[in-house]
Amino acid sequence: MSQSKSQQGKRIILAARPVGEPQSSDFRLEEFAVPTPGAGEVLLRTIWLSLDPYMRGRMSDGPSYAAPVPVGGVMEAGTVCEVAASNNPNFAKGDIVLSRAGWQTHAISDGKGLAKVDPKLGPISTSVGVLGMPGMTAYTGLLDIGKPQEGETVVVAGASGAVGSAVGQIAKIKGARAVGIAGGKDKCDYVVKELGFDACIDHRDPDLAAKLKDACPKGIDVYFENVGGAVFEAVFPQLNPFARVPVCGLIAHYNDTVVKPPKWASSLMRATLTKRLTFRGFIVSDFASRHGDFLRDMSSWVRDGKVKYKEFVTEGLESAPDAFMGLLKGANFGKQLVRVGPDQA
Amino acid sequence: MSQSKSQQGKRIILAARPVGEPQSSDFRLEEFAVPTPGAGEVLLRTIWLSLDPYMRGRMSDGPSYAAPVPVGGVMEAGTVCEVAASNNPNFAKGDIVLSRAGWQTHAISDGKGLAKVDPKLGPISTSVGVLGMPGMTAYTGLLDIGKPQEGETVVVAGASGAVGSAVGQIAKIKGARAVGIAGGKDKCDYVVKELGFDACIDHRDPDLAAKLKDACPKGIDVYFENVGGAVFEAVFPQLNPFARVPVCGLIAHYNDTVVKPPKWASSLMRATLTKRLTFRGFIVSDFASRHGDFLRDMSSWVRDGKVKYKEFVTEGLESAPDAFMGLLKGANFGKQLVRVGPDQA
Repeated sequence: MSQSKSQQGKRIILAARPVGEPQSSDFRLEEFAVPTPGAGEVLLRTIWLSLDPYMRGRMSDGPSYAAPVPVGGVMEAGTVCEVAASNNPNFAKGDIVLSRAGWQTHAISDGKGLAKVDPKLGPISTSVGVLGMPGMTAYTGLLDIGKPQEGETVVVAGASGAVGSAVGQIAKIKGARAVGIAGGKDKCDYVVKELGFDACIDHRDPDLAAKLKDACPKGIDVYFENVGGAVFEAVFPQLNPFARVPVCGLIAHYNDTVVKPPKWASSLMRATLTKRLTFRGFIVSDFASRHGDFLRDMSSWVRDGKVKYKEFVTEGLESAPDAFMGLLKGANFGKQLVRVGPDQA
Repeated sequence: MSQSKSQQGKRIILAARPVGEPQSSDFRLEEFAVPTPGAGEVLLRTIWLSLDPYMRGRMSDGPSYAAPVPVGGVMEAGTVCEVAASNNPNFAKGDIVLSRAGWQTHAISDGKGLAKVDPKLGPISTSVGVLGMPGMTAYTGLLDIGKPQEGETVVVAGASGAVGSAVGQIAKIKGARAVGIAGGKDKCDYVVKELGFDACIDHRDPDLAAKLKDACPKGIDVYFENVGGAVFEAVFPQLNPFARVPVCGLIAHYNDTVVKPPKWASSLMRATLTKRLTFRGFIVSDFASRHGDFLRDMSSWVRDGKVKYKEFVTEGLESAPDAFMGLLKGANFGKQLVRVGPDQA
């Protein structure tokens, strides 16, 4: 054990449940004495912290697919960590592991749920990005629910983000037309020119529906839903018969406090019937059995340049609350990461 | 050709597009000279006319999966007919065929779309009932979309009707708990005592949601949606994670003129996400490739008494409009049929 007893760690605590948009005061930075791992345990040192929209849900205590973070608890997150000390025979000091250490510099783990990261597959940060949860969310939602066919049209919002960018690029690989929606000209240009989408529309455009129609002359066959709100309103009437809608997220609504019935509400079930639509909610763990397929395909696509990715990095654990609040507003341009510690301690 | 030139047929015409509930004045009875089949054609004599809720949709010209009946056109319907005269080598006089002759005593067909009915499988009326479109709607919607697993709970409305009764009985065959919803004590008693559902709730019960909860102590895994309205409102909060909702019909809304956002509207997509729900609209023809499986399974279940059915017959083509208006209000008790002509001419 090389751990000095006096080493201080940092963590960010959920100080209060946000009402509407999270505020700085909903988070609190704490210091703590870095603990020593017990028998069978490892000490993790966080290198990368992944920030993702689903975390807004964990801050509220409404019904969801996962229990909320308790007030006073460490904010949850997927992380890329180094094993800093190990009393567990399955892990050696220096191993890089994917873990759920949360918003903190150090954590103790009994080894359960840790997955070793193979640095040969790509930069280790990609294990929480294009080769990790966001990439696999795109892969399974699009392929296992959306099932795009050659010549069909796939629409996805957040098109420059971690999930959306992968959705569109996989759609292209499958021979479909990919239409993105993103916030602002820079992101839209990137989505079309760098990522190879057929079109990208600014969601702030007052003529969103008309622009979408121009971009989807044959209607929409797959809408990968990760945003909701005005984008879904524009998409909904343009869905083709037999369209599939994997429902992955609703970032436009995560800060909702008063919920008004949306415009499409009264016709959703009728359209589902008459157009034979499929809506299916999912989270990535529903498709755990597809992880091998995902890693094989996605790492080869990344290697061949068929799937590109962009990272948006803020420095230091202290930056996480602001970065997260920005993420919910689309301030990030690419996969949002927090650099918590150096690659080598 | 044994056809007398002076023979008169009858047909029922869509006289006007109904606004809200269909009225008698939306239909008109006409007589016509029964035509003589030309080269390659057959003359059909209608024995059984099937009345089904989807026909309300065909009376309106809103967007749907099928073109509406034109005003002045013969109302559409599936029928069981006898080939009364044939100039088509594929059909002989006396053959019993499933056809879409519509609401009329006689029709000419070029043979396309006709399917011979095998009287050995059961009474020929079942070819538009339990062994026909309604039975196959239940079979494919439940098994191919609903996918009930042993011990799960399946809920279906219209439980004494052609589709609902088959849904619940197939659910039981698959080892699921079957909970029906029907209109009135007589129907509910029949559903439980004759059809073997585990429970049946009167949709007129002011405590529908509470009664449903009592009947579904482990929540609802499959809701076969053929009614919408208050039933769906009661079902929606009780859907379990990963519940499947085949959307087959919305009879409660077919007469809607003003569409108000339903109570569940603002939470539908969020629940779809957080509970990983599947909503999928379908019509029976989407599963045409399953017809062989359906006929094999269903005819054996009917023969073995595992699937029972009830027919609700009105006499004479003239009775069709009233019978149809009654069907939309649940006045029928069992599969609604009109006896248009005798089995043997």
